[in-house]
Amino acid sequence: MENLDNEKYLKKIIIDKFKGDENKQVEDLTIEEARLRVFLNGTKAISMMCIPKDQDAHALGFLMSEDVISEADDVKKITISEKGLRVDIEAKINEHSLQNLYKEKTLTSGCGGGITGNLSQDVEVTFNQTKMKINPQTIYEEVKKFYQDSELYNLTGCVHKAMLYFENGKTVSAEDIGRHNAIDKAVGKCKLAKIDTKYSILFVSGRLSSEMVIKAIMHKIPIVVSRTAPTNLGVVTAHEHGLTLIGFARGQKMNVYTHSGRIIQNDD
Amino acid sequence: MENLDNEKYLKKIIIDKFKGDENKQVEDLTIEEARLRVFLNGTKAISMMCIPKDQDAHALGFLMSEDVISEADDVKKITISEKGLRVDIEAKINEHSLQNLYKEKTLTSGCGGGITGNLSQDVEVTFNQTKMKINPQTIYEEVKKFYQDSELYNLTGCVHKAMLYFENGKTVSAEDIGRHNAIDKAVGKCKLAKIDTKYSILFVSGRLSSEMVIKAIMHKIPIVVSRTAPTNLGVVTAHEHGLTLIGFARGQKMNVYTHSGRIIQNDD
Repeated sequence: MENLDNEKYLKKIIIDKFKGDENKQVEDLTIEEARLRVFLNGTKAISMMCIPKDQDAHALGFLMSEDVISEADDVKKITISEKGLRVDIEAKINEHSLQNLYKEKTLTSGCGGGITGNLSQDVEVTFNQTKMKINPQTIYEEVKKFYQDSELYNLTGCVHKAMLYFENGKTVSAEDIGRHNAIDKAVGKCKLAKIDTKYSILFVSGRLSSEMVIKAIMHKIPIVVSRTAPTNLGVVTAHEHGLTLIGFARGQKMNVYTHSGRIIQNDD
Repeated sequence: MENLDNEKYLKKIIIDKFKGDENKQVEDLTIEEARLRVFLNGTKAISMMCIPKDQDAHALGFLMSEDVISEADDVKKITISEKGLRVDIEAKINEHSLQNLYKEKTLTSGCGGGITGNLSQDVEVTFNQTKMKINPQTIYEEVKKFYQDSELYNLTGCVHKAMLYFENGKTVSAEDIGRHNAIDKAVGKCKLAKIDTKYSILFVSGRLSSEMVIKAIMHKIPIVVSRTAPTNLGVVTAHEHGLTLIGFARGQKMNVYTHSGRIIQNDD
């Protein structure tokens, strides 16, 4: 395996492999899924079912997506427990947003999306003004690389991936069993590294339901690309908030659902 | 369109369809996504982002999956608002389970899974004793039909489907943007029709993370089949609770992860 670091998230099991009516026992790999508990200033804030990897980025990304933490600079300390199943964050938090997280009790449709108390309110005021433009070939190339580089997916067929692509060609990626977790992890990695997501393109493996779009808007990401479909509310939300939403990006094809002005035919 | 009823969940939009560097504007269909609010005995219990279809089954199935409602007979009345975005349920509820739903604050990895406060506790005591057996060919045939009959998926590429298959060959299906919603809807339909799920096979389009397995265990469903992968915790949970877990069921192939004793080579 190229990336030894990933080995510990892959569990070997024995399965019955059927072909027609015949079966034989073979060894197979499954992806780890565990409950990550997040404590904010000593109090339990939330648990998430996820691949316990990039836990600090995951916790920070989620809390910033939910506006519980406004700025990475508001974080004093993040510690991951030895077993990796608990993250403790000391930070300046928006108590109101934290309470909304529980009060609203909205189940999103997104893998790992879970509850969201804040997103739909908070985005009302924003409209994405980023001037970033991109040409189709760059998107096609990045989509191709996106899947080539997705090791856990290729090994288990059971993970989602999110990748932030920057104008200088650099990328920041994360994988998880949940679509949302993958976005929170990738965004969280950028926040930890103090990288501004305002000039990035978010590539995701999953479907684009409204809360995926809202996460991007929360982080001022101007362009979101998926190989699969958006929901109608995803399209409407992207339209209202100035986000360029691209779906079914495969090979030399893609559907641009909103704000196609950011797609340019050449770089001049 | 065969099923006119589905038309109202499909929204027509105009998109920019790119092929290479060229684009043309074409009409496209997207699936509706909306916030369904569920009120229990007059108080708001939860909201879910979903396709606002089979709302009564969805709300009941979810609340029974979470053990907030124990028996379909505990329900006095279910009403769906005119616009279809609010469900009111009058029922005998487990206050403790309802509170857990909010206290635990666990984000699951499952589409539509959202929060789950009760499942992981409640299943500790159960072990699935159902004697139901099935032969491989029946599973292969049903998987094939499963996708042929999935109209919304075929039209939008943006929905998950769940189907309960019964020994008499009857099936109960539901579709949603969320994997979990689809299961809750299909189970809810059975509960509303007073059909026992103890002798059914659950076919799902999505990945089998732990909370998908736990939903099946909660409803005493002995066999779960997906065309895609389970997580390791999904496999462990199925093993511990006597559930037969089948993944990558495609064509004449499938992987049986746990309790393969329910798979028989012939019906004698």
